[in-house]
Order: sequence, then structure tokens, then C-alpha cells
Amino acid sequence: MHIAFQGATGAYSESAALRAWPGCTTEALERFEDVFEAVQAGRVTHGILPIENSVGGSIHRNYDLLLEHELPIVGETELTVVHNLLALPGTPIESIRRVFSHPQALAQTERFVRTLPGVEVVATYDTAGSARLIREGNLRDTAAIASARAAEAFGLEVLRAGIQDFEDNITRFILVSRDPQPLGRPDKTTLAFTLHNAPGALFKALSVFALRDIDLTKLESRPARGKPWEYLFYVDIGVGRDDVRCMRAIGHLTESAQWVRTLGSYQRWTGEPGLVEPLPRAQ
Amino acid sequence: MHIAFQGATGAYSESAALRAWPGCTTEALERFEDVFEAVQAGRVTHGILPIENSVGGSIHRNYDLLLEHELPIVGETELTVVHNLLALPGTPIESIRRVFSHPQALAQTERFVRTLPGVEVVATYDTAGSARLIREGNLRDTAAIASARAAEAFGLEVLRAGIQDFEDNITRFILVSRDPQPLGRPDKTTLAFTLHNAPGALFKALSVFALRDIDLTKLESRPARGKPWEYLFYVDIGVGRDDVRCMRAIGHLTESAQWVRTLGSYQRWTGEPGLVEPLPRAQ
Repeated sequence: MHIAFQGATGAYSESAALRAWPGCTTEALERFEDVFEAVQAGRVTHGILPIENSVGGSIHRNYDLLLEHELPIVGETELTVVHNLLALPGTPIESIRRVFSHPQALAQTERFVRTLPGVEVVATYDTAGSARLIREGNLRDTAAIASARAAEAFGLEVLRAGIQDFEDNITRFILVSRDPQPLGRPDKTTLAFTLHNAPGALFKALSVFALRDIDLTKLESRPARGKPWEYLFYVDIGVGRDDVRCMRAIGHLTESAQWVRTLGSYQRWTGEPGLVEPLPRAQ
Repeated sequence: MHIAFQGATGAYSESAALRAWPGCTTEALERFEDVFEAVQAGRVTHGILPIENSVGGSIHRNYDLLLEHELPIVGETELTVVHNLLALPGTPIESIRRVFSHPQALAQTERFVRTLPGVEVVATYDTAGSARLIREGNLRDTAAIASARAAEAFGLEVLRAGIQDFEDNITRFILVSRDPQPLGRPDKTTLAFTLHNAPGALFKALSVFALRDIDLTKLESRPARGKPWEYLFYVDIGVGRDDVRCMRAIGHLTESAQWVRTLGSYQRWTGEPGLVEPLPRAQ
């Protein structure tokens, strides 16, 4: 497996891939679109993408990219995001004048960063890339907010561990591929569909699962872009494509939905969300 | 009406409040928590909070704060977010060396910002506050990403308008108050509830609305924090608390849900999302 991810070496997406699929090789790309394109073109076998976060919610951008491409989801994993303050070895925290990180990581550590007096906060394109900038520029007055793996990758020291503002900061990632063959035995399927906005339309749509005792593990509505009275739904159901109930439910759903698309059928992640690194929370 | 918002003068939340409730006065506060506390303490009559964005999804943090406080939603509004590049009058775009803005705005204008060669991107606590920093520091090499109202408030010029990466960047805001009296005739109600994770549980829960021909305008599931097999649901229903079907449906829902909370009953926003300012999109 050769897995593309968005970000630099040491990015959370890369950590998630290495932990879930040991022995895989990884490739860093700049944007989410680049990950889809690398998979589409066959330059990598798989792409890993964050799809929802327990604090920030669903990443609609990656749902949009799933709908724009024809790359099925073939796997999933989860990771507890642990942000750390990293600097060159021997740097005392008092001498930090600037903090580099990705805007999302900065937003998730805002409370902590406010406790650092007089520092300038600089947004970068990714967390691990911030660690690289410090190493390459030998920046003695600058810290990065990134994973402990990024510290290791770029020879930095963890000044403070677990600096995220909220506990239970868990990100779910999906794995996409050109080959629709899932990595394990599929027991979960992700669907997207739209409904006309009529009372009871969603209830009718969900009856196709309930009548077959199919569990829903995620359901989300979203106004369809540019169509104010239409709704797009994302649903994860607890049944794989090999189960006859799955095909029957999808067939049944097409009777009332405007359109239905199966985004993939794959093995449910049953492991713990798993810390990137078991570091203690900062005092 | 005296409405607290998070951010500085010219923030998108303030623009949304002034547009939806003309004649109100506003008060800038640092954090979302501060907005809830100011309303709770009676220092302001209302608080306005972003609750979902068409690109970024639901703002779970503000749902959490709604659940932690006892402040009902009494109104809502929507705003199309238009980001602009602002600088001191007469500054040519070529002389910009730094860009200031809030991490979320930086994330939403990432593509545009990458087209500015060699600029340093600096994260700040809010969009409009970035405009103030430029004015106060007389920073001739720095631009802010903020609303055109912020440009006006701090005497800056719009160098490029509409620089957001995605069209249809709409934010929905809610208005909270100590006084549960809605501002208009309530025809929409927001509920939160949890269900045991059992096949058909959600279907049963939604039947309480479908059986009464009550429309759902939003439905979202979210894993309950620290309780991996429980789900928290947010639902917006198209019926106000004065409608007998509303009370009956909520009573019926309590039969199968673990708990149900009404977060507010209010008048649905029926206006256009409304641009902050009708500026042309940058070339």
C-alpha cells in the first residue's frame, strides 16, 4: 500500500495511516484535491482523508470531493488528535516569540496559546510543515504546534504535550482507492442522497433501513448548494455490500430519493481511536 | 436590543446582527463563552452566535455551550460570508509582506493567499481585529482578511473583494436571551436528544414528527462525548412551541429518548442569506 495524504511528513493523516495499516508507505501532498488526483492517476494505491472531527464536525469539503470523484471508500480509521508545542532542543518556553501551525490546529489550541505572553501566531499550510520550517531555518525563538511524530521527524523537542483546548478531539479518516475491493470484510456502507423537502420525506427514506433492522452510525443533513429547498444527506449504515439487506435497502431508497450514491462499503474501525503518542497532558 | 458578539467591531457576527435587527446596539467580546456569560449576567439583552456554516459544517462548540447554559434560542439569521483583502489606503498589493486574519478566515481563503508571493500569514483572534491592528500600528506592508465593514470601521481600503475559495459560504447565526420570549411568531424549534444505539431507534424517534406531518429542516447525529455507543442528535423542526403538535411530538419523543432538551422556539429566517456587501468577485 502506498498512501497519499495532505500535509508534510509527521501530519496527523500520516500518523493515522501508519498506525492503521502498518507497513504502508506514504506520500505527502499539498491539498486534499491532490490526494484524490494522485489516487485517480494511479500514482498511489490509496489516499487517506479526514472526514469528521469530534469538535469541528464533518469536513464537508472532503464529502464534496468524494461526490466529484469516482473513488470508493475502502477503509476507515480514527485518531485522537494530541497537539504539542515543539521547539529546537534546549529552547526555554520563555524565549518563544512566534508560534507556527495550521489554522485548524491554532483554533484548537487557542486557549493555551493565549497563555504564552506576547507571542505572534503565524498560520502555515500544515502542522508538520511548521516543525520543518523551524528545523530548516534554525529558528530559536519559534515553536510549532504539531504531533510528537513531527518532533521526531524534524529533531525538535516537545516543550508542552497535550495542549489542545478540548479533550476527546477525535478525527475519523477514510481511505479511498481506485480498486473498490475493501481491505477487510465490509460491514459498513456510506451513502449520500438528496430528498425533496416534504414533511415525512426523511422518515420515509429512513424506513428502508429500519424495516430491515439496519443500524445507522451517522446521519447528517446539509442544504444542497444553490438549491435552497433541497437537502443532501450523508448516512453510514452498519451493513456491508455483501449483505442482501444492503442492496435491497439502497434499491428501496431510490424509490423516494432524487438520487442515491454509494460512496463505499468497508470494514468498520473497531480499534480504539488511539493516541498519536501517549504523552501526559500539560499542567 | 443590546447584542453581544464574539470578535471585534466589523466582525461577521456583528454584521449579521445589525442587518437582521436594525437599530440594535452591539458589544464586542473575546470568546463565545463570554457571549453566553454576558447574556446570563444580564449585561446584554441578547447574544449572537454562529451555529453552522455551509462549507465548514456545524459549530459543535456552540451547541455544547447551548447545552451547558440555560439560554434559549429566540431568533436566527443567515449571512453570506464575503472575505476581502484590506490594507491602508494607497498600499499597492505588491508591497504586502504579511496577511493577518482569524484561522477560519485564513482556511477559507487559502487558495487566494497562496497566489500572493512570499507573504507571511499571521493568525489573529478575529478578522476585524486584524484590520484594527493595521490601523493602530500604521502597518504599510500588512493586509487583513475581513469584511468590508471592518475596512470602513478602521479606515482601510479593499484591495481585493470576494477572495473566499468557495462560493455559497453561508453562515447561520442564532440569537440567545435570558427571556424565552421569541422576537416574532415562532415557527421553528431546535431540539437536542440522545438515543441508545439500537437498530431503528432513530427511526422510532423521528416517527414522532413524521406522524404529525412536522417537517425537519436540520438533522445531525454526533457521537456523545466519552460515551462511544451513544449518539447526540440536533434537530430543527418546522413548527413553533405554540403549535399543539410541537408539544405532543416532544412528549412522544421523551418516551424513547434518553433525554430531550428544547434549545429554543423562534421565527424562521426567511430573508435571503444576504451579502455583507455587494462587492464584485476579484478577477
